[in-house]
Amino acid sequence: MPVRIGIAGIAGRMGRLLAEEVVAAGATLAGGTRRGDGAAEGLPAPVLPDIAALFAASDVVIDFTHAAAAEAHAAAAATAGKPLVLGTSGLSAAQEAAVAEAARRVPIVYAANFAPGVNLVLAIAERMAAALPPGQYDAEIVEMHHRQKVDAPSGTAVALGRAVARGRGTTLEAAGTESGRDGHTGARGTGTIGFAALRGGQVVGEHTLLFAAGSEQIALTHRSFDRRVYATGAVRAALWLQGRAPGLHDMKHVLGMA
Amino acid sequence: MPVRIGIAGIAGRMGRLLAEEVVAAGATLAGGTRRGDGAAEGLPAPVLPDIAALFAASDVVIDFTHAAAAEAHAAAAATAGKPLVLGTSGLSAAQEAAVAEAARRVPIVYAANFAPGVNLVLAIAERMAAALPPGQYDAEIVEMHHRQKVDAPSGTAVALGRAVARGRGTTLEAAGTESGRDGHTGARGTGTIGFAALRGGQVVGEHTLLFAAGSEQIALTHRSFDRRVYATGAVRAALWLQGRAPGLHDMKHVLGMA
Amino acid sequence: MPVRIGIAGIAGRMGRLLAEEVVAAGATLAGGTRRGDGAAEGLPAPVLPDIAALFAASDVVIDFTHAAAAEAHAAAAATAGKPLVLGTSGLSAAQEAAVAEAARRVPIVYAANFAPGVNLVLAIAERMAAALPPGQYDAEIVEMHHRQKVDAPSGTAVALGRAVARGRGTTLEAAGTESGRDGHTGARGTGTIGFAALRGGQVVGEHTLLFAAGSEQIALTHRSFDRRVYATGAVRAALWLQGRAPGLHDMKHVLGMA
Amino acid sequence: MPVRIGIAGIAGRMGRLLAEEVVAAGATLAGGTRRGDGAAEGLPAPVLPDIAALFAASDVVIDFTHAAAAEAHAAAAATAGKPLVLGTSGLSAAQEAAVAEAARRVPIVYAANFAPGVNLVLAIAERMAAALPPGQYDAEIVEMHHRQKVDAPSGTAVALGRAVARGRGTTLEAAGTESGRDGHTGARGTGTIGFAALRGGQVVGEHTLLFAAGSEQIALTHRSFDRRVYATGAVRAALWLQGRAPGLHDMKHVLGMA
Repeated sequence: MPVRIGIAGIAGRMGRLLAEEVVAAGATLAGGTRRGDGAAEGLPAPVLPDIAALFAASDVVIDFTHAAAAEAHAAAAATAGKPLVLGTSGLSAAQEAAVAEAARRVPIVYAANFAPGVNLVLAIAERMAAALPPGQYDAEIVEMHHRQKVDAPSGTAVALGRAVARGRGTTLEAAGTESGRDGHTGARGTGTIGFAALRGGQVVGEHTLLFAAGSEQIALTHRSFDRRVYATGAVRAALWLQGRAPGLHDMKHVLGMA
Repeated sequence: MPVRIGIAGIAGRMGRLLAEEVVAAGATLAGGTRRGDGAAEGLPAPVLPDIAALFAASDVVIDFTHAAAAEAHAAAAATAGKPLVLGTSGLSAAQEAAVAEAARRVPIVYAANFAPGVNLVLAIAERMAAALPPGQYDAEIVEMHHRQKVDAPSGTAVALGRAVARGRGTTLEAAGTESGRDGHTGARGTGTIGFAALRGGQVVGEHTLLFAAGSEQIALTHRSFDRRVYATGAVRAALWLQGRAPGLHDMKHVLGMA
Repeated sequence: MPVRIGIAGIAGRMGRLLAEEVVAAGATLAGGTRRGDGAAEGLPAPVLPDIAALFAASDVVIDFTHAAAAEAHAAAAATAGKPLVLGTSGLSAAQEAAVAEAARRVPIVYAANFAPGVNLVLAIAERMAAALPPGQYDAEIVEMHHRQKVDAPSGTAVALGRAVARGRGTTLEAAGTESGRDGHTGARGTGTIGFAALRGGQVVGEHTLLFAAGSEQIALTHRSFDRRVYATGAVRAALWLQGRAPGLHDMKHVLGMA
Repeated sequence: MPVRIGIAGIAGRMGRLLAEEVVAAGATLAGGTRRGDGAAEGLPAPVLPDIAALFAASDVVIDFTHAAAAEAHAAAAATAGKPLVLGTSGLSAAQEAAVAEAARRVPIVYAANFAPGVNLVLAIAERMAAALPPGQYDAEIVEMHHRQKVDAPSGTAVALGRAVARGRGTTLEAAGTESGRDGHTGARGTGTIGFAALRGGQVVGEHTLLFAAGSEQIALTHRSFDRRVYATGAVRAALWLQGRAPGLHDMKHVLGMA
């Protein structure tokens, strides 16, 4: 029998993508919740009155709504005895503690980025860095995003840098960074990690980690074309949670990378 | 006492690089064999009459000559009771079986590519393939080499394909390949592994493994700039073989990546 | 006063994209025609009874429908004394002659690919090829498309090859091609043009033209992310046609490349 | 009869590369000059006593020595009535004026970068920029060089930026640049030109110019693998000069790009 998946915030842009991916995965779309009391016309599944009703109708719930809702949704999961996929970002320490508390009673996947490829790339970056001596292989990270992005480097670029540092047995702060080279920079530092940022068009997200030695280079690139990739990853996490013991997991566990 | 290393095909371009790297590593250049009966002038070591004589004079032999010679050279290693580093590509199944048979009596390192980065990439390729479902992620392998190369795809490209298949719990033969698409190909097969070959200039070797899904792509690229990187790795393998038990090893073992 | 643009086949996928791009360009969406007599609900502009009525209501008409309609649409343009943007492919010689005849009375842009970047790349490819001697620079063309594509290489890849041949003062047939290398290929031919095809995911279209010499490489890459790019180019052509004298133009003229 | 080419500074690293490329091109190596009076052993051609003697023995002279010699060498060309290829950089305005004066009597090719591909890329960059509206296509330039390079962006990257600005009918200063993004950058400016610099390994030089719109991207990449590329370009310029009228040319003329 197909897994029944419920979607918190089914009327939003992410909610609609999640609903489509649930169907595409061959699971059953059990229903959704929505903010306010707007009309349910055009929605792909019944709108249930509250999160408790959504858990009652579902085998697992996916929540990409707001940090403010995370605590209540995690508590509802624990009460219902049903697993939760939590994709909201910006949780406070107290909110994260509440999620961890709920995860003592039900299995929860909680991650800031559900793109399978990004999580894979972060795991691999660490392994590559562990195998390539920093005295011989210079690590450089390049990212490109749409022209509206207002800061640099991207959070995922920094996460890549942290993964490289971890693989080298150090931290990004201790290794040192060279970010946004411009003007008289001096020669490259040995063991530092370089960052460069491109902006243009409507690029959803592109990241490259390059290890450059004198006689060889190894590059690892990830490109996101569509926010749908986050929905795909979340549905995969929801299916992976079936039959799991209670606990707090991230996407590395779902992908078998941890 | 320095290890005595013999080189099959010492008069060729690769043979000369190997000879230089033997000396650079502090080992003894024991001698070499060469095709035909040309003058030995300018060669860095004595030319011995045949492979048996070369093994007799050496603690270990390095062979980067031709697939057609692999069977005889492996047999000579077994007869001499001496280890072998074998770097020829394009071996038939029967030739590979003969190498494996010899490896029951002496230790042999047999690899498609002796560059450290290539071996890292092979290890990572398997891990990536294990994490990315073949129904969603199409695996494509592109290689580029200099204009003189006479076959396609390269041995390293095939090794990458085998690594992907292994990560997916199958073999390259069972997964199926699409190599050199041209004309009416039909739609891409799910789970098959694609190969494409570029030729031009003096490119030493460039390989990309791409996993393409609808909303994301992950690419892993290796570039060799200098053929010497293979010679360095082969000499490292020759030294690593000293004192090993019989068996068939690849560069992952030499580099401690397996 | 904004240019009034009419769209033949406004109810189709391409027609709807064209309508959106007309509005995005600040032009006026004058109306459209559609096949059959289905309901006009949900369409972004009034449906007019026939192509003559569409020309009467428009300053210029865009037609991406079918080769079979090209002759009648071109004749209607000539009768109305209004310009036409024609984007259908697969026209017979007779149909092309009819279009050319109409272009003696009104200006027409007729092209097989309206992506501005693709046309720019084709023009540049010819210029690059003219500057880089074939004895030193090997030309290789790589394309990637979605997994459903059933043939290789793509039409645009072949057009790139023809542009390279033209720049070298020859034809693709005379230069010779190496397409889909697999197995024992022999060394690369001097002056031939190589083709390789990748298939995977939902890639709309990616083409790279590479010139590889011993000590340098020059690569030109085009990536389409969205079929909308064709609509954008067609609207640009429609605006460019205002005030032009009669004649048959292609996208190179619109882009100022010819 | 083969063209006789003389080389100023034949004993230096660049002089030796030039000598090899003269021979590779099928021309005659007429002789060279050298600083000081060291032994001529090991040099590939006779050392002549001075620049006048070199011109007397040659049909054309190539000079990659020092800015300080440019004025005298240009004057010697004018006196001898022989063409000159001048590849020294850092000439003062007065030295450049002296070269221009000599070019009224003999044809001279004077350029800061003789790599054919770099000059081709600069010419094409301008043409691309002229065809792609800055409101839709964001221009980004990425360069990578070896880890010893002490400043960013590279001179060639800046030259690429100037070419883009020229194609857009403006200057780099008026268009505005975004170089080395790091921290809170704000959204990308429309029409500005972005620069990013990577450092690592022993990369001789790699430059990419990217035009990114919402639905397509066009990228132009140049990679230098070997300083020999400058020698190849200089010999090509020397051959091109045969039979030319007096005048000051750059590599764009040699390549048929101007």
